[in-house]
Formats: sequence, structure tokens, C-alpha cells
Amino acid sequence: MTRDLKELKGIAEAAAGAARGLALAAPEKRDQTLAALADNLAGGSRNLLQASEMDTDEAARAGLPPHMLDRLALTEKRLAELAEAVDRVRRLSTPIGQTEDERILPDGLRVARLRIPLGLIAFICEARPGAPVEAGALAIKSGNGLIVKAGREMARTSAALAEVFARSLAGQDLDPRAVTILPPLDREALRELLTLSETIDLVIPRGGEGLIRFVSENSRIPVLKHFKGVCHLYVDQGADLKRAADLVVNGKTQRPSTCNSLEALLVHAAEAEAFLPPLGRRLAGLGVALRANQEARRFLPEAEPATEDDWGREFLDLILAVKVVPDYEAALAHIARHGSNHTEVIVTEDQARGEHFQRSVEAGCVMVNASPRLNDGGCLGLGAEIGISTTRLHAYGPMGLRELTTTRFIVTGHGHQRT
Amino acid sequence: MTRDLKELKGIAEAAAGAARGLALAAPEKRDQTLAALADNLAGGSRNLLQASEMDTDEAARAGLPPHMLDRLALTEKRLAELAEAVDRVRRLSTPIGQTEDERILPDGLRVARLRIPLGLIAFICEARPGAPVEAGALAIKSGNGLIVKAGREMARTSAALAEVFARSLAGQDLDPRAVTILPPLDREALRELLTLSETIDLVIPRGGEGLIRFVSENSRIPVLKHFKGVCHLYVDQGADLKRAADLVVNGKTQRPSTCNSLEALLVHAAEAEAFLPPLGRRLAGLGVALRANQEARRFLPEAEPATEDDWGREFLDLILAVKVVPDYEAALAHIARHGSNHTEVIVTEDQARGEHFQRSVEAGCVMVNASPRLNDGGCLGLGAEIGISTTRLHAYGPMGLRELTTTRFIVTGHGHQRT
Repeated sequence: MTRDLKELKGIAEAAAGAARGLALAAPEKRDQTLAALADNLAGGSRNLLQASEMDTDEAARAGLPPHMLDRLALTEKRLAELAEAVDRVRRLSTPIGQTEDERILPDGLRVARLRIPLGLIAFICEARPGAPVEAGALAIKSGNGLIVKAGREMARTSAALAEVFARSLAGQDLDPRAVTILPPLDREALRELLTLSETIDLVIPRGGEGLIRFVSENSRIPVLKHFKGVCHLYVDQGADLKRAADLVVNGKTQRPSTCNSLEALLVHAAEAEAFLPPLGRRLAGLGVALRANQEARRFLPEAEPATEDDWGREFLDLILAVKVVPDYEAALAHIARHGSNHTEVIVTEDQARGEHFQRSVEAGCVMVNASPRLNDGGCLGLGAEIGISTTRLHAYGPMGLRELTTTRFIVTGHGHQRT
Repeated sequence: MTRDLKELKGIAEAAAGAARGLALAAPEKRDQTLAALADNLAGGSRNLLQASEMDTDEAARAGLPPHMLDRLALTEKRLAELAEAVDRVRRLSTPIGQTEDERILPDGLRVARLRIPLGLIAFICEARPGAPVEAGALAIKSGNGLIVKAGREMARTSAALAEVFARSLAGQDLDPRAVTILPPLDREALRELLTLSETIDLVIPRGGEGLIRFVSENSRIPVLKHFKGVCHLYVDQGADLKRAADLVVNGKTQRPSTCNSLEALLVHAAEAEAFLPPLGRRLAGLGVALRANQEARRFLPEAEPATEDDWGREFLDLILAVKVVPDYEAALAHIARHGSNHTEVIVTEDQARGEHFQRSVEAGCVMVNASPRLNDGGCLGLGAEIGISTTRLHAYGPMGLRELTTTRFIVTGHGHQRT
């Protein structure tokens, strides 16, 4: 066992022990911890702001690009928003401790499921201070322990956040190690952390595809993640074209850098002539570049020809792939081949077709007449989210508090035996 | 890519495609397939019995021990039982296709969860013909594809079973590759199968700890499993001692080779003198050997001293570890250290203590006043089970049909956008 591994194992075991205490504490203690966390973020923010400034200055000198500097920086306003996000989590109903599906079997045996936390979660993120705060709040609310490994550019901010979490937990006599924000780890140490399957129950990576692939490929612990979001919107024959155009614009331009933004538009051939020319002009006015198949380019003179690589590509930018398809089945086949199991949309006036699409398209969230940008725990009424899963085990789609829990069977008899 | 891997990938992709068809078929087609499967097992059994006889003869010549030969052999009676088990699965309610948790959000967006199959499951088992039959029936009922890798001692039986499944599926115009029983694979080929994480959604290994460890350590696909069942029963102060003794006897002797049998007995010091001497005599009469700590041996003259290795050991035999503990907390600490997250039991007349035990002991099934042998999907009212999970991700405890499914978010708006 390397020195790193031994040290990480000790840290993880302490966090797992603290998590058991957090899980068994009264719900009020967890809620009061979140109230204190919100206060400590909003009120005692001087240390945090100083740490963030030092991190940001150093990163600027090291040449971090502006959009990453922007994500790295904490401001008074951002802290107030984070405090409000923590308080929103506090106000959600407690996801653990209830019994569900209680049944009395014919022989009198009582069988129920008790909702419990998952245990200890490792959260791996890049240099965005909001991510560990929100993950930490969700972990506390759901009675889970959390170990955070954040990007090294936020090293001082991480240390200051660790102190804020520790103070908030200790104030309720909870073991502060339940939320452990690690100092920066190199890839080799991260790889060691990911072997601790006896102690850590789940890994959630948030960030670019490279980080997520590294975690998935090296983890001996189950991982919940999405690699990428390649979201399609299909405009059906007979669709409300005004609505369809508005959804395309919202899906593509509202925040193009996110995983639930629209990357490809599929249009039924019968609607192409009426739909595409005005949409093309509107998107051009919003700075969106188009890459289209030959049929679509007949109606989109401004579009470049799409290459084979443009299908199934996550642009994360003001670029949209456009394909005219001969029929609904061709749209289904295109999505089956190029989709990423993230978010898929149909715009249709035909209710049966919408339901067929929802039943047969393979994705964690399948929408009728709505923007893919709404695939988000907050927008879908889960209260908050810790990520979006594109694999079907344990959670599929946006992961809220419930997805951070499981159930244990509890069985009560009066001497029941097996015969 | 090796030749094995290429071939296995092709087989898995064909099975995954067939699974999609099975998932979208009408529920009646899946039920009729199960009815045909039950008929084909019970009625057209000649090929199966011949194949089994050849496998069993060869295994006997190769020196397979009698208890393994017994598990390997198919008889008319065993086939009739399997047909009945398949028919029981057919009669369960269909676990997929329903919408759950439907809500209309304040802005009119309709959000629901649609229950869907997991996709394609790889089932890895030893040479027990019943296992792939039951797994195949559960897969068909839940709309999942199944790839089976069974022990090589049942090679001919596997081929005959493959034919029975194929005929039952094809009779309903379903792609027979939805249940694919592979010819024997060596460890290297199995290792290759376990890398196909793009095509196979879940691996369920059934068998000895060695097989399960091999699968867990080599799989790039999520695995649901238990390594072993080290089940404890704690006799609380004030417990009904007659009931406690009956539960110990049932837990230990009803079928000692199973994972939910009792392996260790913990007794509150205040009950040791009244409880242990008569229990020791009763167990001796049933052929159970005892390994006890010093305090327990005062009341169990026939017991050997327990070694440190005896705690947390899965004997799978007529051997029971016995420990007298000073109090309830010591019992909790012993289980926390030596339990296997499988099944834990308290015998108590104190309801609050029973509930505390169920909330705080970490296991997939925690019981009050019942035999651990009842931790079984059938006994707990799940209808059937494909295994027992001792990890908290996706499923914890016995896994029935519901655990072979997940949910997808389905969202319906009328032009809803994100602002």
C-alpha cells in the first residue's frame, strides 16, 4: 500500500464513520447544519472571498482562460446565491427514515422498506466552488457522507470551504469529517482513491468528458455519470412550427455550454420547406452556425455541409447540426444511433406519436413539446440535483435527493420460520 | 480486438437489439412466451433429460463430488418444478410500462416516470440448470435481454435449454436472441465479456465467493451481487427464549449451505445461563458443532473455543459460532465489524429496541423475531428473486422483478422553455 493510499484510506474510513453518525442523527440536526451552512456562506464570507481571490489571481497568472476564471471566482453575489441554494435544499422534505411498501404477508410477517442513505459518496469536480457546496448540502440533507476532490486551481477556496462545512457540522455536535473536502490530488492519488470500494459506496464525477472517462475507467467503485449530452429535437409532420422554432432557439441558445442544450435538429421532410428557411434566418441572427445534410441545405443556404462526425457531436457552442429525415422512423433510427441517453425531444401535435416516442426512445429524459434545457432536477420538480445519469443502474436522468438514497428491507415476525 | 472479444461483442449486440424488441412488445407476448417456456420444459423434456444425463455421466467420470452432481442433474420432477416456477413468474404483475409519480408542475409541465427494463443483463452462474431457467423467466417478464454463461459441466444441458428458450420466444415472433445461453467460456473469454460495458447494462453473478470475486474484479459493467452471507442472530435481554431457540435451529439447520443461513449467535450475558445449555444440547442432537467465546463456553461444555477467524466466517455447514456479549451495544459493534450486509436478526420483546436495530444495523435485510432463512424474494412477497444484493447501489437485499427495472423521466409540455 502506497503512502497516499494509506492516508486516503484513513480519511475515507473516518468520513464513513462520520456518515453513519449523520445518517442516524435526528433530521432537525441535519437541517440546522444546513441553516448554519447557509449563514456561514452568506455572513462569514471574508475568508472565502480572500481565498477565492488568491486562487483566481494565481490562475490568471498561469494563463487560465477567461471562462474558466469566471467559473472559479466567488463573489458576494455568488455566495448569496449559494446560501439560498443551500437553504432551498434544507426546506425540501427529508428523504430518509420513512418506511415504504409496507405489507403484511398472509402468514402475518410484516415486510417493509426503510429509506436509508447510500453511505459515503466521493464527488469529483473541476474548479467550480459552487459544485462542492451544492453536493455537500444534498449529502447532509440525505444523511450521506461526502468526500470532495475539486480542481487544484481552487485549492485555497477548497480549504476555506472545508472550514465552513466543518464549523457548520460541529455546531450541531456532528462529526465534521462527514463532509471532507480534500486538498488537491494528482491523477495518481485520484486513481488510488477510486480503488477504495470497501469504504466508498458511490462516485459522482462532474465535469468534462475527459475527467469523467478517467474516473469511469479507473474506478472500482460504482460511478453515476453522464459522459456527454447529445440532445436531439425532432419536428414531426404536422407539428406547430412556431412552437418548434421557439423550442429550437431556447434549446440551442439559452445556455449553449450545458449538457442539456440542443445539439441536433431533425425535421420531417414534409415540414422542411415551411420550417427551415425562417428558422435559419432567426438562428443566424443569434449567431448560431448550422451544419446540415444535403436535403436540409436546400432550405438553409447559410449552412455548411455536415460531416459524418457532426452527428452525435456535443458542440457545447452556438453550432447546430440539422438533418431532414424522410419520416418518423428515420428520426428514431438517427437518435438510436447518435443519442447519448441524455435528453431527447419531439415536437408534435399527435398525442399517440408523442407517447410512442417517450416509450421507445432510449434516454433518461424524453420530452414532448418542451425544451431540453428543462431536463434539470430543479426544473423537473426534484428540488435540486447532484447530476444527470445516462446509465440505467440505480438512477436514470436527473438525480435528486431520492437518488442519493436506497432502501433496506425490514422484516418483523413473531417467531416466523422457513419450512 | 481478439477473436473471442469480436465474437462476443457481436453476440451481445444481437442480444441487445433483441432485448429492445422484447421491451416494446405487448405484455401478453411476454406472458405467452413464459407459458410456452413452461410447457416446453414440462412437456418436451426428452432432449433436456438426455443432455443432462450425458453431462452428469461425464462429470461423474471426471470425479465431480456428489453434492455437485446432484445440483447438476435434471429429472422429470425437477423439470416440473421449474415449469411451475416459470409459470409463477408469468402470473406476477408486469413490472414495466406503467407511469409513476406523475405530477403537474405549477407552470403546467407534466413530469412522470415510466418504468422500463434495464436492457441487457449478463447472468453468470455455475453448473445448476435451474438458475438460467429462473433468470431467463424473470428477464422475459421484465422485458430485459439476458446472456447466460453457465458452468462448463452443464454444456449439453445449456445447449438444450438454449433451444427451449429460442423455441418459446420464436413462437411469439420475438427475436430468440433476447435470451442467449452461451456455450462454455473459459476465464479469459469471460473476462472479455465483462468489458462490454457499451452493450451489457448489468452483470449478475450467482455462485461461490471465488466466481463472484472474479466477476467483480474484472467487470467494467456494474455488478449486483453478494460475496457471502454471514448472518447473525442476537438474543436480547428479556427475549422469548423458546422462540429464540426455535429461530436459531431453523436458521442454522433448515438448509445450512445457503447464504441466508445463520452463522453466528450473539447472546446477551443476562440470558446466557438460561438459554445456552438447553440450546447446546438441542443443537448437538441435530449434529451442529459449536465454536464459542470463553463466556459462552461456561454454558456450552461441548463447544470448541472460537478462533478470531470464526467471527465473520461463512461456514455453509452445520457449524455455529456463539458469543456471549455484555450488552446490546456490544452486539451492534460485533455485527458492524463482522456482518456482510446480508441478513441480521434480533430476537427481542422490546419493540423500541427492535426498531432501533432495524434502523441502525447495516444490512439489506434486518429482521425482528424471524428466521434469516426468510430473506428470500419468494418468502418476502416479491414473487421471485434473481439474487440478493449486499451493496446499496440500485438494489439492496433480495432482488425481484422491480429490481430488474428502472425509470425514465417522461415530460410533456406545450412549448415550455427555460428562462
